[in-house]
Amino acid sequence: MGKAWPDTRRVTFLPSGLTVDIEIGETLLKAAQNAGLHINASCGGSGVCGKCRVLLKTGSVAGGLTEKLGEPDRAAGWRQACTAVIENDVTVEVPAGSGKLAGGLSTGVAERHRSRLRKYDIDELRQAGLLQPPVEKLFLELPRPSPVDNMADAKRVIQGLHNQYDEKAMVVSLSVLRKLRRVLREDDFRVTVTLARPVHVYKGKNFLVNIQPGNWTSRSFGLVFDIGTTTIYGQLIDLNTGKILDGAGDYNGQISYGEDVINRIIYAETPEGLATMARVAAETMNRLITKLLDAAGIDRDEIASITIAGNTTMTHLFLGLEPHSIRRAPYVPVSTFFPPMRAGDLGLELPHHCVALIFPAISSYVGGDIVAGVMGAGLYRTEALTLFVDIGTNAEIVIGNRDWLVCAACSAGPAFEGGGITHGMRAADGAIKDFSLDPETLEPMNITIANRPPLGICGSGLLVIVAALLSHGVIDRRGKFTRHQTSPRLREGRSGWEYVLAWREENGADCDIAINEVDIDNLIRAKAAIYAGIKTLVEEVGLAIGDLEQIILAGAFGSFIDLDAAMAIGLLPEVDPAKITYVGNGSLMGGRLSELSNHIRRDVVEVVGRMTSFELSEVNGFKDQYIASLFLPHTDLELFPTTAARLGLKKIEAKFSKAFPG
Amino acid sequence: MGKAWPDTRRVTFLPSGLTVDIEIGETLLKAAQNAGLHINASCGGSGVCGKCRVLLKTGSVAGGLTEKLGEPDRAAGWRQACTAVIENDVTVEVPAGSGKLAGGLSTGVAERHRSRLRKYDIDELRQAGLLQPPVEKLFLELPRPSPVDNMADAKRVIQGLHNQYDEKAMVVSLSVLRKLRRVLREDDFRVTVTLARPVHVYKGKNFLVNIQPGNWTSRSFGLVFDIGTTTIYGQLIDLNTGKILDGAGDYNGQISYGEDVINRIIYAETPEGLATMARVAAETMNRLITKLLDAAGIDRDEIASITIAGNTTMTHLFLGLEPHSIRRAPYVPVSTFFPPMRAGDLGLELPHHCVALIFPAISSYVGGDIVAGVMGAGLYRTEALTLFVDIGTNAEIVIGNRDWLVCAACSAGPAFEGGGITHGMRAADGAIKDFSLDPETLEPMNITIANRPPLGICGSGLLVIVAALLSHGVIDRRGKFTRHQTSPRLREGRSGWEYVLAWREENGADCDIAINEVDIDNLIRAKAAIYAGIKTLVEEVGLAIGDLEQIILAGAFGSFIDLDAAMAIGLLPEVDPAKITYVGNGSLMGGRLSELSNHIRRDVVEVVGRMTSFELSEVNGFKDQYIASLFLPHTDLELFPTTAARLGLKKIEAKFSKAFPG
Repeated sequence: MGKAWPDTRRVTFLPSGLTVDIEIGETLLKAAQNAGLHINASCGGSGVCGKCRVLLKTGSVAGGLTEKLGEPDRAAGWRQACTAVIENDVTVEVPAGSGKLAGGLSTGVAERHRSRLRKYDIDELRQAGLLQPPVEKLFLELPRPSPVDNMADAKRVIQGLHNQYDEKAMVVSLSVLRKLRRVLREDDFRVTVTLARPVHVYKGKNFLVNIQPGNWTSRSFGLVFDIGTTTIYGQLIDLNTGKILDGAGDYNGQISYGEDVINRIIYAETPEGLATMARVAAETMNRLITKLLDAAGIDRDEIASITIAGNTTMTHLFLGLEPHSIRRAPYVPVSTFFPPMRAGDLGLELPHHCVALIFPAISSYVGGDIVAGVMGAGLYRTEALTLFVDIGTNAEIVIGNRDWLVCAACSAGPAFEGGGITHGMRAADGAIKDFSLDPETLEPMNITIANRPPLGICGSGLLVIVAALLSHGVIDRRGKFTRHQTSPRLREGRSGWEYVLAWREENGADCDIAINEVDIDNLIRAKAAIYAGIKTLVEEVGLAIGDLEQIILAGAFGSFIDLDAAMAIGLLPEVDPAKITYVGNGSLMGGRLSELSNHIRRDVVEVVGRMTSFELSEVNGFKDQYIASLFLPHTDLELFPTTAARLGLKKIEAKFSKAFPG
Repeated sequence: MGKAWPDTRRVTFLPSGLTVDIEIGETLLKAAQNAGLHINASCGGSGVCGKCRVLLKTGSVAGGLTEKLGEPDRAAGWRQACTAVIENDVTVEVPAGSGKLAGGLSTGVAERHRSRLRKYDIDELRQAGLLQPPVEKLFLELPRPSPVDNMADAKRVIQGLHNQYDEKAMVVSLSVLRKLRRVLREDDFRVTVTLARPVHVYKGKNFLVNIQPGNWTSRSFGLVFDIGTTTIYGQLIDLNTGKILDGAGDYNGQISYGEDVINRIIYAETPEGLATMARVAAETMNRLITKLLDAAGIDRDEIASITIAGNTTMTHLFLGLEPHSIRRAPYVPVSTFFPPMRAGDLGLELPHHCVALIFPAISSYVGGDIVAGVMGAGLYRTEALTLFVDIGTNAEIVIGNRDWLVCAACSAGPAFEGGGITHGMRAADGAIKDFSLDPETLEPMNITIANRPPLGICGSGLLVIVAALLSHGVIDRRGKFTRHQTSPRLREGRSGWEYVLAWREENGADCDIAINEVDIDNLIRAKAAIYAGIKTLVEEVGLAIGDLEQIILAGAFGSFIDLDAAMAIGLLPEVDPAKITYVGNGSLMGGRLSELSNHIRRDVVEVVGRMTSFELSEVNGFKDQYIASLFLPHTDLELFPTTAARLGLKKIEAKFSKAFPG
């Protein structure tokens, strides 16, 4: 967090002459990937297959010397690109068979785009005078009581706040009253008071929630949490500077009771199930809180405020609200607004005075995490017509600008999280996350997370694999293998035709890792749901896809999407990639803003009020849009002119159209 | 509570011809007392001494036949007045030696005045449209959710409140959200919601604190508590009708840790002392709550609000606020305002949604009970210049009207509660509470609580005894026995001269019960502190005692004060007794108003804001006023012209004046 601009070195690839700047410590394989060069690498960059050898011409690298390279080769300058780590500027030659340009679709686009990751605009807030945390510490030097000035201790503090800071109405909480006498006298009536200004609910009155002897104004901290279905992330914030002091994440402890929201709801409907869900989420959060505080050397008592966002089901489970109706038509949540509460009432090990703000939701399937994302990404303040999309099992879509906002959720299914894919897996170590194909041999370059031997395919890898197979004509626009190429990697498997990504001996699994037509069909259905959702929503407000001026991708998955691949398969509308921004965890971003600015909190209420939610299943035409999207990239190529031209795609033939008369 | 106008019968006393109307069930002795007749009765009305015999002429009585009366006497119509119970109109002859007019001072005045007890003006509130409890139940019939109307459950309720009752801003509490789904569907979206409108603190927003399936609007209840140093009283209120359903009182459990506030504070300063004090008070309240609810058949969950008043120390101890500074100059309480809180946080066994309002105080020694009394008695709304006084160990004085209010506390010492008096006792069974004297024989008529053989003297009895001794010249204006009368009851005891109220064989104690000069001196000091406080406060605002247009007596002790006696000894300023009102427990009265009307709650804040508190010890002249008041009734007889004339008192002689040159 907050790390300095990376120190980069330049890598030049021969014979193409392509160059790329890349951080010290990255591998040559990664550099090739970023340059859009294909290098055969079946083993995911783990050094096992020995196929990614390159010849060092100038400069030096660390490592890259595996048992696959004999001593003569090593001496000649051969290195394995997957394990050769960059230290200096370097020039390498890629042997014939590798080093081809990856074709119509380059790989590593996501990596390059990520440099456009939207930075949190704390400075912008400060400049606009909006950096006014809802919790603030003020130092008071008060006169001692005397026979002619014997007002109550509480009144003395309130009067001091009025005199020194022009603070007016004030409610002193019971916990402060209980220690007030002692604290006032501990450092001769010099105290630090913590004020909470919970704008959402109470107008006019502020709350005095804590008091400490002496001056502690420099130590004012808050927490931000994103309760994801899979992962819970937390950040520790310095409320004086706006800086993120540390971040931490861990699997949501609820995961052992169900992988997705529906299974969690089912569990929560059992006796004690809901209480268990709430407790288990709080336990995960408590572990993260302890970790963050311990690392930063901050006392638990110094946390006066926590902002929490999550999807509607996660929010319900955490708060102990019955989620039963969320999974049944007409999909009614218990509430979309949540009162300010005491963190302690939610099972969090935080001081009694710590106030918890829970981000409001829009509907059962557009939750507080999306609202936080809309706030964090500034969508509600931009003039440009923007599409905000958070892709997961459920994709949430928001379209609009500062004048209006509409939103909807589409059920994409678990394909993007590796679910329903024969060799699918979560984005964990060993997951194929990037890929390219030698156009002639159809040999793969598999890039895995942590450069481990491949174990399976994660969502972002799946996108790139399918896009590459499409762009090289290995599959057609229906996602079926064309079979007009031959390669040992193309074969008929148990579930029909498939492409073998990594042979058993190259991978970390106990069988060949392949992708088959059923997998591809699952991906197509998933992307079709999202694209159809976007198109339906855009048209529902009287606009066309072409009117979109900006796309914001949020969420963990969104951060790893290869844009070209996403457009090639028709997951995202085709726009100039320069108009696409990644915000990463938008939920944390929005939560952080909310921890830092009461103005933002006020805006949240206002934004939620004007976000119109559509139930796609109730919108005429959504089903037609969905069916029309069940092609790569789409039935209507005019929606994807650049992709179509680049990949040489042709209008879909009549025989397919007939199959889907809608 | 709320009982009908008493059914009375007429008693005619011969030979005087005096008549008195008195409730059925009262004794003939009580009737004589009310008529101002003296009847010898040393035994407190217990039937032991046999001195109070009267002859029945017409009508009949029940009882009055003790072993002291032989069969011939019984047959002739003799009865003992102390045990003869009135059933019908009756005429009795009082034998020579009894039946004299009690002289300058009549007895039983308090009883007669009590019929002017101020009734709680719930009807007045209702007529003015002010009967708007801070907690209200509303019934909603809501539409069922549908695909085109799938708003969140909470929003459905809020919209229903808006549509059906024009309610606007609303915060739904977490506890309601947690049961909302279930409750809404239990009776087909017909629900009763409980709204809290805590005006003190939060403007604009109301709180939805409870929800029940079906229509429960007819059952809306609140509690009112007065935490007294000695006794805790509670009332159960029907918030729909304003009626007191029941009342109960019990000794404050803290009593075993110290009799008065100072000793309680000292105990609270020990480790765990404060927590014990808080717990013990809550335990007493919990017992009373259970008793009230059980008797009324009301479920604990139906209580949505509780209003609590007490003196500043009691409030501190109950809330767990450190009282240390209250007993040390400059007498600084922790707080005089208390935020609205959850009853459960205070150790009360009340539902989670139950809001507790703690009456604000003025200073360390003018507490929430006095503020509640000022509210309950309507002092803050009257045009008449009024003195409000609550007499106890600490007497609190409020002077003013609807335009201005000043207040102060005086430390009277424990005399009014029987403390520091040789045979003093609390107002319990057997305490002499009323008294008269045969002017010739100096034989007493002792009236005790519950007509038991005398055990001691309570505060109200002490007042009447000293006034009677003064009016019959048995003591002089300094409180010293004049010794120009002879009676076996006047004698020199261990602590100087004394008057024997009840011989050992007539009483329930193991020795003669007497009052001596030291006792009288203690009473004089106590009354002097209060009178001097009143006079100082009146003069501090530029007025004179004669300007007082009304006196309101509050508190348990205040309810039993004999007005003539109080003026005769100079405890109260001399005014037409018709201008004096008893309000009984003013604290409960004010609490009840507050439970029933948000307008009153708003007024409380405003009233507290304009009540100016004086520290008497800091006011010039207070000490002089005190010294001038150390006579019966006062040094300056012009302040007590009626009393002086009636009792034939003369201006104090020079020799006494010299002794107090101030």
